[in-house]
Amino acid sequence: MEIYLDNGATTKVDGFVVKAMKPFFENNYGNASSLHFKGVEAKNELENARQKIARTFNCDANEIFFTSCATEANNLAIQGIAQSLKEKGNHIITSKIEHPSVLNVCQKLEKKGFKVTYLNVDKFGLIDLKELEKAITEKTILVSIIMANNEIGTIQPIEKIAEVCKKKNIVFHCDAVQGIGKIKIDLKKTKIDLMSCSAHKIHGPKGIGFLFERNSINLEPLFFGGHQENSLRPGTENVAFCVGLATAIELAYKEMLVNNKKVKNLRDYMIKGLEKIPGCYINGDLTERLVNNVNARFDFIEGESLLLRLSAKGICVSTGSACSSQSLEPSHVLKAIGLSHVQAHGSIRFSLSKYSTKKEIDFVLKELPKIITDLRKTSVLGNHNIEKYNSMKVDHHEH
Amino acid sequence: MEIYLDNGATTKVDGFVVKAMKPFFENNYGNASSLHFKGVEAKNELENARQKIARTFNCDANEIFFTSCATEANNLAIQGIAQSLKEKGNHIITSKIEHPSVLNVCQKLEKKGFKVTYLNVDKFGLIDLKELEKAITEKTILVSIIMANNEIGTIQPIEKIAEVCKKKNIVFHCDAVQGIGKIKIDLKKTKIDLMSCSAHKIHGPKGIGFLFERNSINLEPLFFGGHQENSLRPGTENVAFCVGLATAIELAYKEMLVNNKKVKNLRDYMIKGLEKIPGCYINGDLTERLVNNVNARFDFIEGESLLLRLSAKGICVSTGSACSSQSLEPSHVLKAIGLSHVQAHGSIRFSLSKYSTKKEIDFVLKELPKIITDLRKTSVLGNHNIEKYNSMKVDHHEH
Repeated sequence: MEIYLDNGATTKVDGFVVKAMKPFFENNYGNASSLHFKGVEAKNELENARQKIARTFNCDANEIFFTSCATEANNLAIQGIAQSLKEKGNHIITSKIEHPSVLNVCQKLEKKGFKVTYLNVDKFGLIDLKELEKAITEKTILVSIIMANNEIGTIQPIEKIAEVCKKKNIVFHCDAVQGIGKIKIDLKKTKIDLMSCSAHKIHGPKGIGFLFERNSINLEPLFFGGHQENSLRPGTENVAFCVGLATAIELAYKEMLVNNKKVKNLRDYMIKGLEKIPGCYINGDLTERLVNNVNARFDFIEGESLLLRLSAKGICVSTGSACSSQSLEPSHVLKAIGLSHVQAHGSIRFSLSKYSTKKEIDFVLKELPKIITDLRKTSVLGNHNIEKYNSMKVDHHEH
Repeated sequence: MEIYLDNGATTKVDGFVVKAMKPFFENNYGNASSLHFKGVEAKNELENARQKIARTFNCDANEIFFTSCATEANNLAIQGIAQSLKEKGNHIITSKIEHPSVLNVCQKLEKKGFKVTYLNVDKFGLIDLKELEKAITEKTILVSIIMANNEIGTIQPIEKIAEVCKKKNIVFHCDAVQGIGKIKIDLKKTKIDLMSCSAHKIHGPKGIGFLFERNSINLEPLFFGGHQENSLRPGTENVAFCVGLATAIELAYKEMLVNNKKVKNLRDYMIKGLEKIPGCYINGDLTERLVNNVNARFDFIEGESLLLRLSAKGICVSTGSACSSQSLEPSHVLKAIGLSHVQAHGSIRFSLSKYSTKKEIDFVLKELPKIITDLRKTSVLGNHNIEKYNSMKVDHHEH
């Protein structure tokens, strides 16, 4: 049995997406920059993909720039603005719970003389709009806020943040990776100036993403070369994956209402089940939350041990984000919402997808309490308190 | 009939490579950074791919860094050295016939205060080793020379260039994109410090490449984020394409001797045929040349018109490189070997592959003279001279 509940890290590619990409390997393999018929064919497919994405988000096709991933898109947005607006100011505002590809580029910019304000979040992971407004100075050139957090799933009030930025005439970048396909985004209505997206969180392939760059914005590229992507992102276009990305996006929004309802029901069912486990708590906000995210912490449990025990049972989950998995540091997100080191280390993220089933969740809810009890027996994290859990009645077969 | 002679721009993906990538979309879709069994499985495949590449080029696996393309690899190498060695010096040496992803980053660095020497090439496209030695100063931090030119196929004396750099203790970067799979490369023997490579020129997918970075070298990353690729290149690893790249490389070198012989014979057969066309000349060197490259110029012909007429017959060729196709400027490579603007604009690149056949070349050699004659009738490029060609006897059916 294989139960994949790590869709926040990456997802299974939808068979429909695989099928859409297939012709571009052995048949329509032309270089989209070539002038002959095979090049024109590839170029047309590339531009169709761009238009599909633009239609979905209600923007112009020439505002979509394909990148190799969202990490690249985030860097292009932030480094690009820092370079192009450095004469205007040197202040950037972001939050404490951004993805490493935002936080680490901000830290890099600090070493180059930029000032960065890292906004606090409350215990649910939400930023304070008043704190944002207060943080803005005459030197502020960019606000970068994640749409939905990748660890705890908290959804920020993006429209309100966009309004604040618009009022103050400051560029607003939004890392929308986890929100894409789960949250409706209308770029004519919401004044996001730069938006990063990735295919592999929405049943598309790994290795492709895009940056939306509003026509009014001017970015310095990260690399230089050919004229591709209007010279903002040179390199031979990965037509297969651009088509895959567009197909995944179109599919995600076509199925969104149905999938969101289904996944949310499963998630809430899972949360109810988890809450029956003694010493289990849900991290983050319960309403402003991605439909597929469950982040739970367990007293006297070391998250990584739990992950490995679940993995041995065929259940895939994560501690923190995959991008930070090789770090021994506790999650910066969980710390920012006020958890202690021990609490952060005792947390696990379950992230569901449209492929998740009640049967799978039932299996997890059956196995999890047994593993928890077992791990607590040997826990070094406060053995003096552990008896109260062992003496609690936990019905392992309830679910 | 479809005759693809634009393999310098991109290639058909080998069925064997497609097969190798297939499991990673719908089955082994784990994130290589995840700690559960699906992550470990993906990580193992990623590291196997890295080891395959390292074995092929006789280097250490930890010296291979996957990138999204060779443009990115070239930028990472050159921008990376410029950043990490800027305290040591500000002088870079390259040639006049590099790919735009080298030339344009060098031009960008000039704007930031770096000095760049662009070495001349002779009429065959070869750099002069003495000129290279003379160009080196105490401030020189990097030499970047293309292994085999993408337009005219000229192969540089890479081992000798590497020796010069080694003697002077200067970092040597080599854009090996067109050489990979056609030229044996032993990185223990040849002191290349940084080497860029792409999959899509060797029957692998578009959207993946690697940078070889010798262990002794230290580069500043282009972007910042997770710990992937030892933090030199963050972003979720595109496992499918990394496996595809490794498979394509392994296959290319396994088949190299056989393919090189076959393709070279076809190329020489084509050159003989072209030389029978009045007012046709071969650009570049005839010996130190990629086995699959034919670059020919035609008096009184506008290359783009010829390309489009060939395309209408199902024949895919290019003028200059695909990366420069939207530019109206004549090829910088053809200008560097001494051609006039008109001569450069009258040039066409035919680039063969292992899939090319004698039948295809015969068809081209049959159609080409007819199109040439036809175009010359209406040529505006020196109508006063054109009669001599029209009166020459060209047997269109000879080949």
